[in-house]
Amino acid sequence: MIIKLERIEVQSRRDLEMIDITNEVDRVVTASGVRDGVVMAMTTHTSSGLLVTEGVECLERDVLAHLERLAPKDPPRGEYSYWHNRYLDYDGRLGFNAGDHLKSILGGTQCFFPIENGRTMRGGRQRVYFVEYDGPLARTVAIQVLGEGG
Amino acid sequence: MIIKLERIEVQSRRDLEMIDITNEVDRVVTASGVRDGVVMAMTTHTSSGLLVTEGVECLERDVLAHLERLAPKDPPRGEYSYWHNRYLDYDGRLGFNAGDHLKSILGGTQCFFPIENGRTMRGGRQRVYFVEYDGPLARTVAIQVLGEGG
Amino acid sequence: MIIKLERIEVQSRRDLEMIDITNEVDRVVTASGVRDGVVMAMTTHTSSGLLVTEGVECLERDVLAHLERLAPKDPPRGEYSYWHNRYLDYDGRLGFNAGDHLKSILGGTQCFFPIENGRTMRGGRQRVYFVEYDGPLARTVAIQVLGEGG
Repeated sequence: MIIKLERIEVQSRRDLEMIDITNEVDRVVTASGVRDGVVMAMTTHTSSGLLVTEGVECLERDVLAHLERLAPKDPPRGEYSYWHNRYLDYDGRLGFNAGDHLKSILGGTQCFFPIENGRTMRGGRQRVYFVEYDGPLARTVAIQVLGEGG
Repeated sequence: MIIKLERIEVQSRRDLEMIDITNEVDRVVTASGVRDGVVMAMTTHTSSGLLVTEGVECLERDVLAHLERLAPKDPPRGEYSYWHNRYLDYDGRLGFNAGDHLKSILGGTQCFFPIENGRTMRGGRQRVYFVEYDGPLARTVAIQVLGEGG
Repeated sequence: MIIKLERIEVQSRRDLEMIDITNEVDRVVTASGVRDGVVMAMTTHTSSGLLVTEGVECLERDVLAHLERLAPKDPPRGEYSYWHNRYLDYDGRLGFNAGDHLKSILGGTQCFFPIENGRTMRGGRQRVYFVEYDGPLARTVAIQVLGEGG
């Protein structure tokens, strides 16, 4: 059995941002030498996500805008507030990103795909996105391949 | 190690529809000859989902209705609109299914279960659903089994 | 290949509750003797969840409160109702937890992590939570490890 784990670095440049990492996933699969198996990817951060959707820029904007609607950074005034938005001793600063952790949970943080004949088996429109909810930051995504070689 | 990948075809008949594919997942597990391992299932489409919940018809209706509340096909007039709902050159038609992609992200698109003694290890009420958000369409679900034989 | 499956018991004490099970996941990994591989965890119940987020008490409260906002136990009067909230023959009682099943779907029910050098490879702030939406109840979480030994 071949087992390979790679960390890839992703630099976000905006507060909210979708970054297509499909080619990185495919590159790790090819480099692994696995012919049949599975590739798994996950973000290692709790205010970011990893999800699969269609790869068009207008949809990227909708995904970010809609998650912000469902889990806003600033709750609608007078309706509710976040407990996490308070002084956190362990961070030495105000917690401010409860809404971003919530987006991470709602949108998901990991995915897998089968590997078949040495290639990631994805649907024709499926792209893998790292999703930044609390940028800009330097981020790490773990990509792991398990399977049998050729 | 045994590694088996099957594609199953699912024909949805409505715009929004939950289709119980648990028996298909179990059939692939049995046919694989794997005694201990894991089975993974995913939809290959970005306007559909795959999720695990209880298998009762009234709940199926609630899941579909609630995802439509959280990510409507038509946004409430005057509140917001979707960028994806515009003319898409690459499709030669209007984008119209931003809300369906959003449902797919919120509800999830894949799942796994352990295999133990040749059987899928599920909770007593857990059923696996393919979820159509943009039907009726002919859809493909990938089911993969990895593990050791008996 | 080493394949180990453990069931751990979780006793929730409140209706809504987040229970950090990271140490249990790590314990199963260590006990398995796997050096390189993957660990997968899932809840076996459809009115509970399993998710990954930061491990602070204020955020736990936000996650529970926000999922209750997005999928309330009692829908806002006059806006909508749940079909599942009716008499269920097979249960011999009223269905009452449609909102809890919906929370389970939105928040997710399973996760995986790579294992590297015999340790779970998690981000510095990532904790694994069993999430009770319909407690208090005795619950079972499945934790499975696959990989190669040292």
